Amino acid sequence: MFIDLSKYMLADADYKSADGVIISIPYDETTSFKPGARDGGKAIREASWGLESYSPILDRDLTEVKYCDLKDLDLYGNQKDIFNLITNTIKNILNDGKKPIIFGGEHSITFPIIKAVKEIYNDFIVIQFDAHCDLRDEYLGNPLSHACVMRRIYEINKNIFQFGVRSGDKEEWEFIKKCNIYSKQRLLNEEDIDIIKDINKPIYVTIDIDVLDPAFAPGTGTPEPCGFTTKELFNSLYLLRDVKDMIVGFDIVEVAPIYDLANITAITAAKIARELMLMIL
Amino acid sequence: MFIDLSKYMLADADYKSADGVIISIPYDETTSFKPGARDGGKAIREASWGLESYSPILDRDLTEVKYCDLKDLDLYGNQKDIFNLITNTIKNILNDGKKPIIFGGEHSITFPIIKAVKEIYNDFIVIQFDAHCDLRDEYLGNPLSHACVMRRIYEINKNIFQFGVRSGDKEEWEFIKKCNIYSKQRLLNEEDIDIIKDINKPIYVTIDIDVLDPAFAPGTGTPEPCGFTTKELFNSLYLLRDVKDMIVGFDIVEVAPIYDLANITAITAAKIARELMLMIL
Amino acid sequence: MFIDLSKYMLADADYKSADGVIISIPYDETTSFKPGARDGGKAIREASWGLESYSPILDRDLTEVKYCDLKDLDLYGNQKDIFNLITNTIKNILNDGKKPIIFGGEHSITFPIIKAVKEIYNDFIVIQFDAHCDLRDEYLGNPLSHACVMRRIYEINKNIFQFGVRSGDKEEWEFIKKCNIYSKQRLLNEEDIDIIKDINKPIYVTIDIDVLDPAFAPGTGTPEPCGFTTKELFNSLYLLRDVKDMIVGFDIVEVAPIYDLANITAITAAKIARELMLMIL
Amino acid sequence: MFIDLSKYMLADADYKSADGVIISIPYDETTSFKPGARDGGKAIREASWGLESYSPILDRDLTEVKYCDLKDLDLYGNQKDIFNLITNTIKNILNDGKKPIIFGGEHSITFPIIKAVKEIYNDFIVIQFDAHCDLRDEYLGNPLSHACVMRRIYEINKNIFQFGVRSGDKEEWEFIKKCNIYSKQRLLNEEDIDIIKDINKPIYVTIDIDVLDPAFAPGTGTPEPCGFTTKELFNSLYLLRDVKDMIVGFDIVEVAPIYDLANITAITAAKIARELMLMIL
Amino acid sequence: MFIDLSKYMLADADYKSADGVIISIPYDETTSFKPGARDGGKAIREASWGLESYSPILDRDLTEVKYCDLKDLDLYGNQKDIFNLITNTIKNILNDGKKPIIFGGEHSITFPIIKAVKEIYNDFIVIQFDAHCDLRDEYLGNPLSHACVMRRIYEINKNIFQFGVRSGDKEEWEFIKKCNIYSKQRLLNEEDIDIIKDINKPIYVTIDIDVLDPAFAPGTGTPEPCGFTTKELFNSLYLLRDVKDMIVGFDIVEVAPIYDLANITAITAAKIARELMLMIL
Amino acid sequence: MFIDLSKYMLADADYKSADGVIISIPYDETTSFKPGARDGGKAIREASWGLESYSPILDRDLTEVKYCDLKDLDLYGNQKDIFNLITNTIKNILNDGKKPIIFGGEHSITFPIIKAVKEIYNDFIVIQFDAHCDLRDEYLGNPLSHACVMRRIYEINKNIFQFGVRSGDKEEWEFIKKCNIYSKQRLLNEEDIDIIKDINKPIYVTIDIDVLDPAFAPGTGTPEPCGFTTKELFNSLYLLRDVKDMIVGFDIVEVAPIYDLANITAITAAKIARELMLMIL
Repeated sequence: MFIDLSKYMLADADYKSADGVIISIPYDETTSFKPGARDGGKAIREASWGLESYSPILDRDLTEVKYCDLKDLDLYGNQKDIFNLITNTIKNILNDGKKPIIFGGEHSITFPIIKAVKEIYNDFIVIQFDAHCDLRDEYLGNPLSHACVMRRIYEINKNIFQFGVRSGDKEEWEFIKKCNIYSKQRLLNEEDIDIIKDINKPIYVTIDIDVLDPAFAPGTGTPEPCGFTTKELFNSLYLLRDVKDMIVGFDIVEVAPIYDLANITAITAAKIARELMLMIL
Repeated sequence: MFIDLSKYMLADADYKSADGVIISIPYDETTSFKPGARDGGKAIREASWGLESYSPILDRDLTEVKYCDLKDLDLYGNQKDIFNLITNTIKNILNDGKKPIIFGGEHSITFPIIKAVKEIYNDFIVIQFDAHCDLRDEYLGNPLSHACVMRRIYEINKNIFQFGVRSGDKEEWEFIKKCNIYSKQRLLNEEDIDIIKDINKPIYVTIDIDVLDPAFAPGTGTPEPCGFTTKELFNSLYLLRDVKDMIVGFDIVEVAPIYDLANITAITAAKIARELMLMIL
Repeated sequence: MFIDLSKYMLADADYKSADGVIISIPYDETTSFKPGARDGGKAIREASWGLESYSPILDRDLTEVKYCDLKDLDLYGNQKDIFNLITNTIKNILNDGKKPIIFGGEHSITFPIIKAVKEIYNDFIVIQFDAHCDLRDEYLGNPLSHACVMRRIYEINKNIFQFGVRSGDKEEWEFIKKCNIYSKQRLLNEEDIDIIKDINKPIYVTIDIDVLDPAFAPGTGTPEPCGFTTKELFNSLYLLRDVKDMIVGFDIVEVAPIYDLANITAITAAKIARELMLMIL
Repeated sequence: MFIDLSKYMLADADYKSADGVIISIPYDETTSFKPGARDGGKAIREASWGLESYSPILDRDLTEVKYCDLKDLDLYGNQKDIFNLITNTIKNILNDGKKPIIFGGEHSITFPIIKAVKEIYNDFIVIQFDAHCDLRDEYLGNPLSHACVMRRIYEINKNIFQFGVRSGDKEEWEFIKKCNIYSKQRLLNEEDIDIIKDINKPIYVTIDIDVLDPAFAPGTGTPEPCGFTTKELFNSLYLLRDVKDMIVGFDIVEVAPIYDLANITAITAAKIARELMLMIL
Repeated sequence: MFIDLSKYMLADADYKSADGVIISIPYDETTSFKPGARDGGKAIREASWGLESYSPILDRDLTEVKYCDLKDLDLYGNQKDIFNLITNTIKNILNDGKKPIIFGGEHSITFPIIKAVKEIYNDFIVIQFDAHCDLRDEYLGNPLSHACVMRRIYEINKNIFQFGVRSGDKEEWEFIKKCNIYSKQRLLNEEDIDIIKDINKPIYVTIDIDVLDPAFAPGTGTPEPCGFTTKELFNSLYLLRDVKDMIVGFDIVEVAPIYDLANITAITAAKIARELMLMIL
Repeated sequence: MFIDLSKYMLADADYKSADGVIISIPYDETTSFKPGARDGGKAIREASWGLESYSPILDRDLTEVKYCDLKDLDLYGNQKDIFNLITNTIKNILNDGKKPIIFGGEHSITFPIIKAVKEIYNDFIVIQFDAHCDLRDEYLGNPLSHACVMRRIYEINKNIFQFGVRSGDKEEWEFIKKCNIYSKQRLLNEEDIDIIKDINKPIYVTIDIDVLDPAFAPGTGTPEPCGFTTKELFNSLYLLRDVKDMIVGFDIVEVAPIYDLANITAITAAKIARELMLMIL
C-alpha cells in the first residue's frame, strides 16, 4: 500500500538472497572546483523510477535479477575513518559472494573500494571510463584527492585500462608514457576487449560520469568539453558482455545533481546501472 | 552503518509503538494552473534533515516523541479509487489510536482524509490555514478539485475555521457570508483560540502552504501575493498549544518543490511538521 | 503598430485562406512521471520568433505559405469530454480541406486526433518518431494514458511506422513482435520512405520530442538517454519530402518547457514545425 | 472553443467600448546592470491567469469593468523613434477618453508617456513608487536612461511625489533637497493622500516594481534590499481609492522575468494591475 | 580604459593608504549539509557594482573612505594549515593598523580570525548575528566545524553577544544557560548597545547571513525559517553607530551563491558591507 | 598569498612581455532577442580555472606562452563612441606587436575590431565560425547590429570564409550567391585550409559560440538547432595549426552566461581560447 521511491527501482530482494548490493557513498570533501557529488546516489535512485525495467538491447528485465539497496553509507569522522569504513563495507559484500554496485560521491572513494577488491581478489583489472587521468601524485596537498585516485590505485594494482581521458596536467601524461599505462582518449573498443579477455582476471569497472560530454552529463563537478555521447558510451559498455562473468562490481561516480538539468545526468547514470546490472547479475 | 535520508528526520519508531504516523500522498491531478505538489512529501522529508531536532520555543526534542514514516501511498486508478484508498488508510491509522501526519500532494486530498475523521469522530472542528477559500462548488467540471475541497468538507462538517484566506471568486465570498462561515483574512489569534476551546471537540488542522506569502513559500502551485511571513504563521500555530490535546491529526499540502528556491518552502513545511509533532505527540 | 508574439511566427493568414491551421492542446493529465507538457504550445510559439522564416535547406520562406494560429483549445470536463472536443476540432479542420498542425500537450492527444483522421481518410499511415513504443494496453489503470496512445491507434489503424523507439516494457516489445509492427530503434531512412511511398496512402506524422536525446531536448517529461541529435532527426524528416503531398497533418508533442534549458527544446520544436510546414503547405 | 492566454485575463472588450487600454512596451535598452524588462508585459499577462478576477478588498470583479489588451508595441529604430511612438500611442489613447495601463519595459518609457499626458492634461501630478530616485542628469552618457527618468519628467512637470526611494547617488539626494522634491523613503500614507487630494489635479501613477523588497520582487534588474512587503505596498495603493477618479493612467515597470522565481514578481504585478483597474475603471 | 569588476566597488586605495582591507576566504570544507560558501566573496564583490556608493541613511559615500581589496586568500593544505594562514593574514592587517573586512566562506573561518584579534587586542567583544548558536563541542567528529565556531571562540574569549539565534540542539541551549551566555533570539536593540558601550572594549562583528529569513537570504547553506527581514537587520546594525570607533573589523559569512536567487543574498551582503565600512572607516 | 580568479587562468605576464593580450568587451546593446552576452568575458575567465593548463592534443602548456589579461573595456557613451574605443584599443595592441584575444560581448564588436585590423594589415582574411550569416544590410533600423556584422566587414574586406552557417533570411543567402562569398554550412575542412594557405595573408578568426549546437552551447542569445558538437568544432580548429603563424588575433563572442547550464558554454569557450592561444602564441 506504501511505496519507497528512494530506493533504486525494484530493489526488492533482501540482502541474503541478493546477487547485487547497491550502496551509495555521499562523499565529496576533496572536490576542489565544484562540490555536490555527495547527492549523486539519491539522484540516481530517484531517476531510476523514470526508466523501464526492461532493456530491449539486452532483452532482459530487472525483475529477472536479484539485488537490494542499502542506501547511504553513514559517514563520520575524517577522511581516513571514512575510507576505512568504505573498505570494510565493500570487503563484507564481496566476502558474502555478492557484487557491489556503488553510487558516488566523488571519485576518491574508488581507492578504498579497490583496497577491498585487492584484499579479496589480489590480482585483477580496473577498467576506468573518465575524462580525466586522475593520476596526480597529490592535489592541493592531499594525496587522497579525487584527482589522485588512479595514481593511488595504480600503486596497488598495475592492471589499469583508461578510456575517454582527455584532460590532465603535463606530469600525468608523462607518467602515463613513463609507466606505459593503457590509457586511451577514445572509448573501449573490440580490440581492447580482446586484450582484457586474454588477461583473464577479475574486473572492477569505475565510471566517472564526466567521461560523457557536458551536453550529455552537465550534472558533474568538472565537466570537460569534447566528450562522448551517451550512445557512444553505451555501445562501448555493451562490449563488456564478452567479459561479464569476470566483473566483480562497479561504481558510477561524480554525478552532482545540483548542476544537472532536468535530471538527465542522473537518468543516464541510472540507465548505465540498469544495463550493467542486467549484464553481470 | 547505513542511513535512510528519505524518511522524515528521526522517524525511527515502528508502527506499533508510534503515536504519530507520517504518510505522504503524491496526488496533484486536479491542479489546474501549475502541477507539482505530488513531490511535496519527498521534499519535506529531505529538507527535515537540515533542521535541528530540538525546538527552542517548545523546549522539546523529536527524540522525546514516537513517530514512524510510512512514505508514499501507492496510488492507482481514477480519482475515486485513490480517494477511497486515502480514506481507508487514514481510518486505519485513527482506529489504531495514532495521529496521522500527512504531507500532500494537492489540497483535494484533505476531503477523503476528513471523511475518515468523520467516520471516527463524527463531530469535530477543521482549522484551515490557506490563501484561498477553496469553497467553489465545482472547478473545470470537477466537484473534487482542490479548489472545491472546503466546500465538500463543509457539506459533511460545518465546524470550519478559515484563516489567512485572501483570494477566491465572488461566489465563494458570497457563500461565506450566506453560510456565515468562520473565515478570516488574518491569521488565527487568541480570541479565535478561546472560541475553539469553548467548542471543545476534536480538531483536525489542514495547512495549505500558500497561506504564506510567495516570498516565503514560492514552491507552490497558486502563489497569492500579500500573504504572511513564516514568523507570523508560526506564532499563530503556537497558539494551538492551548488545544493541543484535541488535535487528532494534521496535513501540510500544496508544497510543489519544482517551483521552490533552495528548498525554503520544503524546509518551512518540515519545520511546521516538527513544531506540530512536538506539540501534539 | 502592435504585435502579437504569442502566435507562431508570421501566422497572419485568416482561417478561410489558410492551408495550414496551427492549434495547441494544453493537456497533460495522464502524465505519470513529470507533468508540464500542457505549456508546450506556448513555448513553441514564443520560441518561433527567434528563428528565421527562411529555410536554407528547403530554400523556401514562411511568407510563401498560408497558415493561421488558433491558439489553445479551451479544455473543460473529464478526459472523455476533452478527447471528443479534440476529435471534433480536427475533423472540422480536415473537412475544411486544411492541414492541422498540432502542438501538444502530452502524447495521449494523438489518439483523438487520429480518430478524426480515421473519419475523414479511413485508410492511412501513421509515422511516429518517439523514444517509447507507447504500446501498453493500460497504464496506472487508464487505457487512454500517453503510454498507451499507439496501442489505441493501432486498434483503429494498423499502418503504423515507429522510428527511434528505444524504451518500453517487455510486453510492449513482445506485442511488436507478435503483431509484426514496423518498429525501428533507428530513425526513418530512405528504404523506409520507399516502403511508405509504395503504400501510397494519406500520412499523418506524430513527433514525440523525446525521440531526441535528452541533451538536445531536455524539456520533456520522460527523457530517455541514447537518443538522436537534432541534425539526425532533421535529416530523417527531410526524407519526407518524397511523400510530402500525402501528409495530411502532424503533431509535435511532449514539449514540457518547465524542464527546458534556454528554450532549446521549444526552439527545436518550432524549427521542426517550420520545416514541415514549408514542406507540406 | 479557443482561448488566448497571452492577453491579460478577461481583456475581452473591444477598443471602442473599453475604458481601460492595456499595452506593453518591450523596451530595456538603457538598462545598464541587468537587462530583461523587455519581457515584463508578457510575464504579467501570463501570470494574471493564476489570479481570481475578484478582489475581496475592493469587492469588485474584473467582469464589471471594460478593458482591452493591445499587446506589445512594435518597436523599431533608435531610442528617439521609439519614444516618439510611445508618446503618440499614449496620446491617442488619452484622446479617445480611455485610461492607458502600461506594462514595461524599463522605467525610461515613463518619460515619453508623461510627454503624452502633458500634451493632454498640461497640469497634473505624478506619483512614483520606486526604490531609486531616478533623478540623475545623465547616466553612462545618456540623458534618457532609466536612471534619469524622473529628472526628465521633473523638467516638464514639477508635481512629483516619490515613495519608497531608498537608493541614489549623492547628487540625486542633493537635488531632492535643493528642489524640495516631495520624496519619501517610506510608502504613501494618509497624510500624503490628503495633500494630493488638496492639489486636485489629474494623477498619473508610475510603479517601479523594485519598490518592493527583492524577497517579494526578485524579478527586476536593480533589486535594492530593505524594501517593502507586498502587503505594505497594496495597503498604500488602496489609499489611492480616495483620489481614484483623478487617476488618468498608470504603468508598472522593471518586471524582468528572467530573474524571477516561480513568477512571483509577475503575479504581484498582475495583482497590482487588477486592483488599480478595479479602482479607476 | 579597462575596469576590474571583480573587486568590491571602488576599492581603489593601495594597501598602504587603506584604512580598511577587504579579503575573502573561499573555505567551506566542514559544511555538512549544503556546501557552496566558498564562492561567497566573489558573489558579494560582483553584486556590489549594482549598488550606489552613497548611503542616504548614513549620508556618506564610499568615495569618502579608503579601502583596498586583496581578493581571495590562496588556500592550500589541510584545515590546520589553512587556519594558520588565516590567523597570520589577519594579524598582519591588524598590526598594520587597518581594519579587516572579511567575506566568507563558511563560519568556521571566524575562529582563526578571532585568534588573530586575540593576539592583538587580548580583551574584546564579539558580536554575532546568526540563526544558529554554533556552540556545539564537535560536529561529525570535527571540533573546528562551522557548527562549533562560537564554542571555540568562547573558549578563548568569554565576551560573546549573540543575536537572532533561533536554532541549535538541546545541548547548545543548555550550554547557553549554564554559561550564562548573552544570547538573544531577537536582534540587537538599544539596551544591548548600552550594555556593550559600558563594557568599552574593542569589538569584532561576525555576521552569518542566515540570521536573515530564507526569503531574504536564500543563498546560504543552512537556511532557517522564522528569521528577520533585511530592514530589521539593517536597523539593528545602524545601532552600532554608537560604538563604531570600537569596531576593529567584521566578517560576513555563509553566503552561498549557488542557492541564491537573482543574487539578492549577495546584494544584501554587499550592502551590509557598504554600510559597515561607511560607519567604521 | 592572494589569488585573482577573475583573470583568465595563469594570465600572469605583464603587458610589455606578453605575446597575447586578453581583453573583454561587455557589449550587447543591439541584441534583439535575448541579451546577456555582456557577461561573456567574466564567465569565460572564471570557467578557465576549471580546466587544466595543458593540452594533450597540442602537447603544450599555458605556462609555456606569455599573455596578460586586461579585463573589461570600460564602455561609455553611444554605439559610435564605444566602437571607436574598441578600434583604438585593438589598434594599439596590434601596433605593439601583440595578438589580441577578445571575449565578447555580442558579435557586432567584431566590426570595430576588424577596422583596427584593416588599418594595420590592410589585406587579410577573416575566418568566421557561426550559425548565422550575419549578412543583413540593417536590422531593426541599425546597420551596426550584430545581425549585420559580416556585411559591414565584407564592405571593407572581401576575404571572408564562413563555416557552420545554417540560418539567415532569404536576402542574406541571395547575397552570398550574388557575391560568391565562401560560405559553408559544414565546418572548415582540410580543403578549405589548403585554399586559405594558398592565399597567404594575415588571418583573423571570429568564433560565434552559436556555431555549436544548443545542446553544447546553450548559453547564447540566438541558439540555432542542428549545429555541431564540441568535438567537431575542435577538430576543425585544430586544422588551423597549418596556418597558425598567419593568425593575428581572434575573438569568441555571444557567450551569454545567463542562459548557460553548469557553465558548460563558458567552459567550452575557455577551452577554445586555451587551444588557440597554445597554437598562435
